[in-house]
Amino acid sequence: MTAPILDFWFDFASTYSYLSAMRIGPLAEKAEVRVRFRPFLLGPIFKAQGWVTSPFNLYPAKGRNMWRDLERSCADLKLPFRRPDPFPQNSLLAARTALAALDQAWGENCCRALFRAEFADGRRIDDPAVVTDVLAQLKIDPKPVLAAAQSDTIKMRLRAQTEEAQRLGVFGAPSFTTADDELFWGNDRLEPALRWAKAADKQN
Amino acid sequence: MTAPILDFWFDFASTYSYLSAMRIGPLAEKAEVRVRFRPFLLGPIFKAQGWVTSPFNLYPAKGRNMWRDLERSCADLKLPFRRPDPFPQNSLLAARTALAALDQAWGENCCRALFRAEFADGRRIDDPAVVTDVLAQLKIDPKPVLAAAQSDTIKMRLRAQTEEAQRLGVFGAPSFTTADDELFWGNDRLEPALRWAKAADKQN
Repeated sequence: MTAPILDFWFDFASTYSYLSAMRIGPLAEKAEVRVRFRPFLLGPIFKAQGWVTSPFNLYPAKGRNMWRDLERSCADLKLPFRRPDPFPQNSLLAARTALAALDQAWGENCCRALFRAEFADGRRIDDPAVVTDVLAQLKIDPKPVLAAAQSDTIKMRLRAQTEEAQRLGVFGAPSFTTADDELFWGNDRLEPALRWAKAADKQN
Repeated sequence: MTAPILDFWFDFASTYSYLSAMRIGPLAEKAEVRVRFRPFLLGPIFKAQGWVTSPFNLYPAKGRNMWRDLERSCADLKLPFRRPDPFPQNSLLAARTALAALDQAWGENCCRALFRAEFADGRRIDDPAVVTDVLAQLKIDPKPVLAAAQSDTIKMRLRAQTEEAQRLGVFGAPSFTTADDELFWGNDRLEPALRWAKAADKQN
């Protein structure tokens, strides 16, 4: 028997994607669901909605509350947190690096390490030197990963992945989609999405 | 010893306010927190953000997901649900009625009955005949309530309450505020808000 699958759509610039990335591993294991990490870019999707930056910047009251909510949530989860500057970070390099990394066994570790660099250590994930250092700390040779990240293959795969997210109705991050096309939006929907994936699988 | 207080800010047009209104009673009792029902109008607050209708109408992908999420959430909570038409409803009459009702012991019941009329029975809460019927079913004489709801006192109180919400940083509904000025936004934050109110109270 194969485990049911849940797709985890995230953007490295997204604050609540950080929380989900750090939470999803043990929760998925407990739920007996196999998670696929699907990095994509929110930018083009926001642009299609008429937003030129994060809605948290466009709507200051909403933004202020998000930062405070994130502080509280990280404290509850015992996760370190530092507010990235600037926000949002340009997540293109991190997304490409992650796509290349996810072809390897250590791909999810690499995603978590990039999120930590950004949201726990306050480092800039658009800086190749930072990405190089993140990989080196994982005992991964950075050179071939960064070369792959900048290849046309990965660039096209990231574009295709972002288009797929949009086709599935994804409008924010994190989002979760199931084999039977349910879309769950937001870190708060991680547990219901895992439950759905598991229950839908049992019905087949 | 008096129980800590949590203010529950809601708009009758707001879908997730329905969920919180139906959930908050037993949860607050268990948490030993006293909840104050604070109806207000999102309209003026949305307008200040440049929105002329619900963001769920302005952003169709977000709106589609909200309706599906609400169906799933209501199923989980075993709450009846019918999508209001039109959406959003004009919530002015319901908010004024609720403010008048909340001066009485049956005020919270009246709020829940109005939410049920709208989101479970698909009735129009901007129709005085519907509000009259909702009150009558609670064995309340509708006439004096509706007269109070349309008084200048209540009109001004609703305006002041909406301004207070805005001053507190409220930008959506439901929201929850504590005595130490924490703002929690969304039905998903009801439990953390109750925990916060309780914990903050213990520290004093």
